[in-house]
Amino acid sequence: MNYLPAPTATKPDLRIYERMESRVRSYSRCMPRQFAKAMGAWMYDSEGGRYLDFLTGCSTLNYGHNHPVLKQALLDYINADGIAQSLDLHTEAKAAFLEELEATILKPRNMNYKAMFTGPTGTNAVEAALKLARKVTGRQLVIAFTNGFHGMTLGALACTGNSVKRSGAGIPLNHVSHEAFDEYFGPDVNTADLLEHRLSDPSSGLDAPAAILVETVQGEGGLNVASVNWLKQIASLAKKHGALLIIDDIQAGCGRTGPFFSFERAGITPDIITLAKSLSGLGLPLALTLIRPELDQWEPGEHNGTFRGNCHAFISATAALKYFWRTDVFSRGVKRHGQIMENRLLQIAAKYPGRVAVKGCGMMLGLDVGSADIAAAVTRIAFRRGIVIETSGPHDEVVKILAPLTIDDETLHIGLDAVEAAVADAFIETDGIKWNRRKANAH
Amino acid sequence: MNYLPAPTATKPDLRIYERMESRVRSYSRCMPRQFAKAMGAWMYDSEGGRYLDFLTGCSTLNYGHNHPVLKQALLDYINADGIAQSLDLHTEAKAAFLEELEATILKPRNMNYKAMFTGPTGTNAVEAALKLARKVTGRQLVIAFTNGFHGMTLGALACTGNSVKRSGAGIPLNHVSHEAFDEYFGPDVNTADLLEHRLSDPSSGLDAPAAILVETVQGEGGLNVASVNWLKQIASLAKKHGALLIIDDIQAGCGRTGPFFSFERAGITPDIITLAKSLSGLGLPLALTLIRPELDQWEPGEHNGTFRGNCHAFISATAALKYFWRTDVFSRGVKRHGQIMENRLLQIAAKYPGRVAVKGCGMMLGLDVGSADIAAAVTRIAFRRGIVIETSGPHDEVVKILAPLTIDDETLHIGLDAVEAAVADAFIETDGIKWNRRKANAH
Amino acid sequence: MNYLPAPTATKPDLRIYERMESRVRSYSRCMPRQFAKAMGAWMYDSEGGRYLDFLTGCSTLNYGHNHPVLKQALLDYINADGIAQSLDLHTEAKAAFLEELEATILKPRNMNYKAMFTGPTGTNAVEAALKLARKVTGRQLVIAFTNGFHGMTLGALACTGNSVKRSGAGIPLNHVSHEAFDEYFGPDVNTADLLEHRLSDPSSGLDAPAAILVETVQGEGGLNVASVNWLKQIASLAKKHGALLIIDDIQAGCGRTGPFFSFERAGITPDIITLAKSLSGLGLPLALTLIRPELDQWEPGEHNGTFRGNCHAFISATAALKYFWRTDVFSRGVKRHGQIMENRLLQIAAKYPGRVAVKGCGMMLGLDVGSADIAAAVTRIAFRRGIVIETSGPHDEVVKILAPLTIDDETLHIGLDAVEAAVADAFIETDGIKWNRRKANAH
Amino acid sequence: MNYLPAPTATKPDLRIYERMESRVRSYSRCMPRQFAKAMGAWMYDSEGGRYLDFLTGCSTLNYGHNHPVLKQALLDYINADGIAQSLDLHTEAKAAFLEELEATILKPRNMNYKAMFTGPTGTNAVEAALKLARKVTGRQLVIAFTNGFHGMTLGALACTGNSVKRSGAGIPLNHVSHEAFDEYFGPDVNTADLLEHRLSDPSSGLDAPAAILVETVQGEGGLNVASVNWLKQIASLAKKHGALLIIDDIQAGCGRTGPFFSFERAGITPDIITLAKSLSGLGLPLALTLIRPELDQWEPGEHNGTFRGNCHAFISATAALKYFWRTDVFSRGVKRHGQIMENRLLQIAAKYPGRVAVKGCGMMLGLDVGSADIAAAVTRIAFRRGIVIETSGPHDEVVKILAPLTIDDETLHIGLDAVEAAVADAFIETDGIKWNRRKANAH
Repeated sequence: MNYLPAPTATKPDLRIYERMESRVRSYSRCMPRQFAKAMGAWMYDSEGGRYLDFLTGCSTLNYGHNHPVLKQALLDYINADGIAQSLDLHTEAKAAFLEELEATILKPRNMNYKAMFTGPTGTNAVEAALKLARKVTGRQLVIAFTNGFHGMTLGALACTGNSVKRSGAGIPLNHVSHEAFDEYFGPDVNTADLLEHRLSDPSSGLDAPAAILVETVQGEGGLNVASVNWLKQIASLAKKHGALLIIDDIQAGCGRTGPFFSFERAGITPDIITLAKSLSGLGLPLALTLIRPELDQWEPGEHNGTFRGNCHAFISATAALKYFWRTDVFSRGVKRHGQIMENRLLQIAAKYPGRVAVKGCGMMLGLDVGSADIAAAVTRIAFRRGIVIETSGPHDEVVKILAPLTIDDETLHIGLDAVEAAVADAFIETDGIKWNRRKANAH
Repeated sequence: MNYLPAPTATKPDLRIYERMESRVRSYSRCMPRQFAKAMGAWMYDSEGGRYLDFLTGCSTLNYGHNHPVLKQALLDYINADGIAQSLDLHTEAKAAFLEELEATILKPRNMNYKAMFTGPTGTNAVEAALKLARKVTGRQLVIAFTNGFHGMTLGALACTGNSVKRSGAGIPLNHVSHEAFDEYFGPDVNTADLLEHRLSDPSSGLDAPAAILVETVQGEGGLNVASVNWLKQIASLAKKHGALLIIDDIQAGCGRTGPFFSFERAGITPDIITLAKSLSGLGLPLALTLIRPELDQWEPGEHNGTFRGNCHAFISATAALKYFWRTDVFSRGVKRHGQIMENRLLQIAAKYPGRVAVKGCGMMLGLDVGSADIAAAVTRIAFRRGIVIETSGPHDEVVKILAPLTIDDETLHIGLDAVEAAVADAFIETDGIKWNRRKANAH
Repeated sequence: MNYLPAPTATKPDLRIYERMESRVRSYSRCMPRQFAKAMGAWMYDSEGGRYLDFLTGCSTLNYGHNHPVLKQALLDYINADGIAQSLDLHTEAKAAFLEELEATILKPRNMNYKAMFTGPTGTNAVEAALKLARKVTGRQLVIAFTNGFHGMTLGALACTGNSVKRSGAGIPLNHVSHEAFDEYFGPDVNTADLLEHRLSDPSSGLDAPAAILVETVQGEGGLNVASVNWLKQIASLAKKHGALLIIDDIQAGCGRTGPFFSFERAGITPDIITLAKSLSGLGLPLALTLIRPELDQWEPGEHNGTFRGNCHAFISATAALKYFWRTDVFSRGVKRHGQIMENRLLQIAAKYPGRVAVKGCGMMLGLDVGSADIAAAVTRIAFRRGIVIETSGPHDEVVKILAPLTIDDETLHIGLDAVEAAVADAFIETDGIKWNRRKANAH
Repeated sequence: MNYLPAPTATKPDLRIYERMESRVRSYSRCMPRQFAKAMGAWMYDSEGGRYLDFLTGCSTLNYGHNHPVLKQALLDYINADGIAQSLDLHTEAKAAFLEELEATILKPRNMNYKAMFTGPTGTNAVEAALKLARKVTGRQLVIAFTNGFHGMTLGALACTGNSVKRSGAGIPLNHVSHEAFDEYFGPDVNTADLLEHRLSDPSSGLDAPAAILVETVQGEGGLNVASVNWLKQIASLAKKHGALLIIDDIQAGCGRTGPFFSFERAGITPDIITLAKSLSGLGLPLALTLIRPELDQWEPGEHNGTFRGNCHAFISATAALKYFWRTDVFSRGVKRHGQIMENRLLQIAAKYPGRVAVKGCGMMLGLDVGSADIAAAVTRIAFRRGIVIETSGPHDEVVKILAPLTIDDETLHIGLDAVEAAVADAFIETDGIKWNRRKANAH
């Protein structure tokens, strides 16, 4: 298993980051290289090292880096002096995107939504969704879920579970109740029943909610997959109790789980949908809040933002919808790859009974290795072997594999081989450490 | 005064926007054309009409549209498969930007700051600043100002004065006290004294603030310019009362008022500075929070965001700093243009004594025409004459002129001629309407 | 079963209340009489009607009305011009109370607490407890429970579950998470385990709590009794997670469940205890927050209130502690009476299998009759039979029997006979109505 | 000036308080005696010392201690087994109070209000007022004023200015904006104009208020008297902007400034009025929220509380209204006494030009002696001379004189003589200390 050429050993000069960049940076701490170029599944560092990207910007690069079709569309646009920034003025770039979205994504799925372009980050799309839900219902409480992740600005952060992120707020985060996600209390407790019980009890202390905000697969939360039944029950609960159902599809959408929207498997109709990350196709900032038409009750300008008319991103996004989503070839490919990955991961897990479990679905998969220490060891070793890869989960105990959806079979196997080897090494290393500690303590 | 070729009369087909875009859109309502291309100060619509851009994305396009040097740098980068999206990984694009920022902007000004890249919108940069101030001080209240504008996500929105924007929140916006901006109560009341009085009174009900958040020139608030003395007093107040001074330079920074930072004229040293809009030079999403090093107390990853590594924007931003800011030629040009504009505007205002006043400074100027109706008439007429232009101010009573800083003298005069004519027509129209009404009422 | 002389039929003149009193009044709506005097278990209305008090001011009159010993102590004090109101000055009345509290209640139970007199209502005592817990821990979130009731001022109201009461706030009630009380999800779900799971998960969205606030028996919430094991587990959870354990013993304390404190059966040591209602013995306003000495970290005057030195109440409270609590005779009597009541209620319930259940413990007992309609019928009929009695529970479905603890056996049986008859009549009435409706619908 | 017999020197045994009472106690720290009895203006300690009460429970004992008429009414009621506690049931005691309130207070003043009895403390009455204002208007923000004091429970505390009290909350206090009270910025700034300016500016950041909550004379805030014009302007502002006007008359009401309500001098009609403190006449806990009938939109039971039916307090309150308010003799007497006091205080102040100022109005008067140190010295020395007296104001710099309104001329002069002497001694002591320090520093 030595398919990946070892990245060069030359250490990059990273002093400018130490000197000039805030200590808030995180990913770069575990992957101390400097990257320069990228094509498809591969990233190249300044010293000539090559890395297989199993992180893809946390699912921002579903179509791989610099996909040639998308790249060419953008180059053509820039060369022709296409308008780059337009606030919310009408532009040809936006019109083309809206038309493609309507024809290729919404119509075939019998979905009827208005498109709201917010500031081009996922958290802005979530903030807009929350605002609208509160405005439309006249209620203030939002129900979010344990281990949910929705963004870093205060409205979205209040819906996020992670305590480190939350503590950054410096003020209490309110107007949100975090309820138990599917199987949060194990397979025997139907958490949707618990929620129903509280919503139906006028003395439960749970106020009438404006919205239920949910990810169908929790990316940052550890690749937890909500079951179809649970999602249906939550959707029905929302309807019954007058709350809007908001699906945050920022990480799981745009094909990551197979279909364009992650909730298609459940056959539910959200009131509001948030998209961002892979929407632009090239990794450019773009965010979109889809709203059922009757809920589009905004005052003009009530929620705005300078960069909501990011035309470069409209251009590449339109090209991506055209190229990948006009037929179901791409989607079927994702499902096939997802199956390959899941099988490999199950084989890996089977080697470590009781210690490793497979998480996720589609091509949003990972390995729960039981602790942050082991998961960190896996990613550290994998990075040495040329894999850009990260962890997630409440205790950072899940090694998250987010390969480009466009990856070819051979490259996928190369990467999974490296992950498999890293897991093996990580257990040796960790068990060894523990054994050494025991020995040391014996004296 | 007919220098601008009248845009074609062909009406564009805007049905896709009606059908598919949320009613939250605003600018496009007053300017019902569809734009396609843009170069320098000029925008072109799909029907071949040409418009002079006196809005520049609310100061996002200080260097004009598609500046050839910036554009070429971006094309070269994309052609070479430069990495587009990198979360917070180290990239050559980021390193180049940090080095240019340090060498060209900070060092010559004896400024020592750490750079934090937030999600690439101004509101995200403000949210990060607020979080950090609260975290560092352990306090929760932030002091913002009347007519201030800081963004649409809940943390920044709480600091924003505009009641339409605020009402969009759907929940009460707290932890912020809105104090009176300079000259808010007229020239005879020193509002910094009022604030000082309340901060020094342990029973005023004003809790100890974590930060004072201020724009030196309020762009959305009506081009209100804080005096140097007021800014110095506010800076000193912040220091005395243990609050961080945050300058929101998102609209006024990047040369709009002449120097790179708008606060340079006041000789103050903010604790935190937020930048966005024109930072990338081409209108691409990019946001930056500058932090005094000793305040950089973030936990790794405590505030993050997918698109904070928008490398396309790093590339054009670096090119912009290099091209425009390595000498003071550009800055001096802005001052000269600003003086020309101010003189012209004073001449216009002089024609309407007691009805029109000049607001703003540098090339961040406008005309207070006394009412939303008249201001709307001015911009509507100006748009018919080929000027893209907008209003601001608490009652939308200020016609805001944000020309590209790179505009040539002739084009500037063409535009100002059109504005002058639009003001004249607007008053005729408005007074006429009123006269007709009076006449009608007389019967 | 006709032991109670039917109250006179003369209708009282209640116009002054209609004309002058706010419509917020509630109990008086179901019991449209005007009361004048009261002794022991009996209340007398202005028309000479006599009523057996099975409400006792929601457990405020545990020793009955105008107990002669307490009444005489108060008369002596007033006759001697004893000081009535003292803010927090030292008074003989307060000293006597503190000494009696220490000697009779705390010392024999090996309890070491500081006494804080708050404004003389339960809600004020709870507010003080919450403030102190937040201050001492530096945390903001408080965990309260479904169906909990803690008061009407905003801090306590945020901890209260009832949605009608909550909606009165007019602002969102925050900084509190309402967790499931014991057996809230039925006997098969250990809700303390659920809470533990969430507290131990750093991504659950549940912030570290300042306090866990709990009633051992939920009076307003429907006479739900927390089991000893659950209480022990909650106490242990609080300790483990650095939260203070606050027992709100306002309704269940002062002997209502048998021992002086309701939590004595669980063998737990709260960090803070709130008492009010029956503390003064005569029904006079008095409230007390007991604090473990090391948590008594108040600044002088940090929480105050005019009537916290209500000396009349100190006098009667001291007399009550002396008379009832120096030996265990009284407490044993309550247990015996409770057993008698429980047996009677079980007999009544047995007549209506599947329709009536016994709730509560000690002399804090009631009948869950399944719906608000039936419960209202029971209390209405019982009142016609001369019983002052009320409902509680999330749906007002529990007929709550709070007899004076000092009641004699015969009177207790008279009252229970009347309740039994009222239940029978209520079911006849309700079933009859339903039957009539069915018949009517059949046509 | 030695009219007051020096209190005995025997030191009382205060160990029980040290051992058993929370350190939150405050008044008792400056007056380390133990009080036993009280009649009229005089309090007696356990060692036989006699003290003139110039604190009167912060205006809770306007009719003096144990007024014989009120006391007899209460004794008669208790002797006759009058019902003591009634929740909100109808009682003869409540009816009598409502009738007397209507006939003696409201009707003669052409006032039409509904009476809401809240939990019997001022803070509960304020909480009810705030809730109702928010409910009725559907708005959340309340405008309160610098140096205002409204209570210690979270809703009322948010409206209180004092930072020590506020910090006790342990959570941020929101939904309230503290605006400048009359003359807060000196005589040249009309603070009502400032407020009007902000309320009329849609971008001021000040949300539309549910209520304006104001004391006409700020007792705790330093005896600041709002002018008639300012009060009229505030009342008119409230009306214009759709906010309810709530007058908190808890300390200034019940005759303290002369008329029964303190706002009568301004000729304004509040929407809601809160009363407590002296309402019961004897110092017993009682609180009342008066509501304009069309605003009485409570749901039954939406705001309740155990002790809102404190019949002992109804009895003494009724007796007080009858005895003192059926004619204007009493009110005129207060005005006369107020004039005497003011003249004396002006004479005292005149001795210390630039150092002492007279504050307040009616019999709610005090001396601003410039610093907490001097004020503390005055009260300490006065207490040694047999005067119970306290300070107020943002810096505790005002010696507050709240004599019983029933005091006779001779006793009043005795007390004022002692205050005068204490002021003199305090300045000698303070100046001496300073002088000594200067001398010491000279070496």
